[in-house]
Amino acid sequence: MPTPMERIVLAGRPQGSPTEADFRHEHTELRDPAEKEVAVETLYLSLDPYMRGRMDDAKSYAKPVDIGATMEGGTVGRVIATGSDRFAVGDLVVGQFGWATHGVLPANQVRKAATDYAPPSASLGVLGMPGFTGWYGLTELGRPKKGETLVVGAATGPVGQMVGQLGKALGMYVVGVAGGADKCRFAVEELGFDMCVDHRAQADTQAMRVALAEACPDGIDVYYENVGGKVLEAVMGLMNPFGRIPVCGMVAYYNLGGLGMGDAPGPNLLPRMWRTILVNKLNVHGFIIMDHWERYGDFLAEVGPMVKDGRIKYREDITEGLANAPAAFMAMLKGENFGKTVVQVAEDAA
Amino acid sequence: MPTPMERIVLAGRPQGSPTEADFRHEHTELRDPAEKEVAVETLYLSLDPYMRGRMDDAKSYAKPVDIGATMEGGTVGRVIATGSDRFAVGDLVVGQFGWATHGVLPANQVRKAATDYAPPSASLGVLGMPGFTGWYGLTELGRPKKGETLVVGAATGPVGQMVGQLGKALGMYVVGVAGGADKCRFAVEELGFDMCVDHRAQADTQAMRVALAEACPDGIDVYYENVGGKVLEAVMGLMNPFGRIPVCGMVAYYNLGGLGMGDAPGPNLLPRMWRTILVNKLNVHGFIIMDHWERYGDFLAEVGPMVKDGRIKYREDITEGLANAPAAFMAMLKGENFGKTVVQVAEDAA
Repeated sequence: MPTPMERIVLAGRPQGSPTEADFRHEHTELRDPAEKEVAVETLYLSLDPYMRGRMDDAKSYAKPVDIGATMEGGTVGRVIATGSDRFAVGDLVVGQFGWATHGVLPANQVRKAATDYAPPSASLGVLGMPGFTGWYGLTELGRPKKGETLVVGAATGPVGQMVGQLGKALGMYVVGVAGGADKCRFAVEELGFDMCVDHRAQADTQAMRVALAEACPDGIDVYYENVGGKVLEAVMGLMNPFGRIPVCGMVAYYNLGGLGMGDAPGPNLLPRMWRTILVNKLNVHGFIIMDHWERYGDFLAEVGPMVKDGRIKYREDITEGLANAPAAFMAMLKGENFGKTVVQVAEDAA
Repeated sequence: MPTPMERIVLAGRPQGSPTEADFRHEHTELRDPAEKEVAVETLYLSLDPYMRGRMDDAKSYAKPVDIGATMEGGTVGRVIATGSDRFAVGDLVVGQFGWATHGVLPANQVRKAATDYAPPSASLGVLGMPGFTGWYGLTELGRPKKGETLVVGAATGPVGQMVGQLGKALGMYVVGVAGGADKCRFAVEELGFDMCVDHRAQADTQAMRVALAEACPDGIDVYYENVGGKVLEAVMGLMNPFGRIPVCGMVAYYNLGGLGMGDAPGPNLLPRMWRTILVNKLNVHGFIIMDHWERYGDFLAEVGPMVKDGRIKYREDITEGLANAPAAFMAMLKGENFGKTVVQVAEDAA
């Protein structure tokens, strides 16, 4: 008897910010896994800013989602049928099964969930792609040194949480940037950041710069860049010589004329930025974590125990029900989430 | 009897492009060297784009030249009096003696000219600061690989000449960008570049991009950035994944509202640039060669013999007479020089 399933497909390409009309909720049936494939019932779906890029028809590091295709997304779920001896029915696994209640993927595109260290949903956040992104960018590209100043954008998001707490563990002075007093309080009181600047309380780039300058009396040595926009522009004027900027995202630009394919209104800040890179001898290093999965085992071995014993904390923002994924996604792009955005697609019946 | 000398001082801070009124030619007397100092008669004065930055009263990697002070500049000259046993009268030395016929400096700020490999003026160009800048940026930060595509701006300038010829020696496919058909012909026929794009023949960024795309069928792996402006903007769209951009200059921006302190007219290209850095996982690395003088010996040992035996060629653009330095400098900022800009201040009487 076929298994009924639900999925959310891309209905149209957004102009600027996505709307409900860009998504469509469909009912269909799960196909059986072929040889070397596994079929999974999804428990949790991860919602991440990069998905905004997949909705555009623009050249990027990954191909766009086709109109009518299931929205792309990482999930954690339980194997319900298998054509591979790598996984047994009942195993908890992580893969890009998309915005859907069920899915089938080749077994070699699936990995075991990191449940030795934390509950299943953590494999999408603190121990999944975002946490791994934060760890790799800070430790490999940020070249952090004890006593240096680290500024982290989207401080209470899943990448920012990891970066800031790792920075503290390495003896850095850590300043977060987050939207709203609650998030800033959480960053300082729960995550242990030294300071946190509320970007909603800063009227413009100049105000942001003044606030950051106060928070960073010794300047900024590492800026972990996953935001862009006002924060980036303010930070650049405060970077110390030989500063490092690992670039893994730019959520502030995602809705800008189709992911930056159109140009923003002036003035043109490029010459000023380029001058700062030269004069302060900065190293700006873009990276996409998909290129570095061979390091995931190193990450898990180092960070898994820190999560298990509470040295690294994490906060999730869980929405119930696949049908609510578009609304949760749109809210996240506006910064309305508080912690890692996850959709609980099913109760774990195991 | 005091030695009469001449010097050119900064008379005023330029608004945009410098004019003759920003310089003043003065007659004065050379002071005697104190203990551990040397007095030098200058033979050649180097003119370089960075000097434009020193004319502004803006925060930079070096302090500005004061109004009324001698214009800063590297020189090669002959020691005429010494208070140091590190140099003897008659030695040919290099130092920042400025836009002047004579000067005095502490001996520890002076080095021997590289005359084992080439005539004295070469110590200001191919074997001096610009050549060293090109070598360091390409080999240390550009991480060049055989078969990759290298694009070099200001290809017939002293940095570009070095970068392109080193790239060819390393087995790269090398495309220069230069202003005018003569310079492009020189880059290909004399320096051995594979191609050279005439930026004066390209009406705008889009035309430049089309020309570069034709010249670089496999995309661009390393862009040696010493220009900025239209070339930079065109190159960014053609960079290959994991591309490297060592940034050592940006002559196109130097006259822009006081070295980029004011913002350029829109559109704002910063979001697009930032997106490219992320999506193509680029490494953009600013550097100032003054931070790396400890590597000068390595440079000279490697490149000196290549210059001596003609594997690396160089072209100089020599102007006679200190009084003509301002005009030569202004012409250089407009790209009217052809090769390393040098002023012959005196005949070598030795």
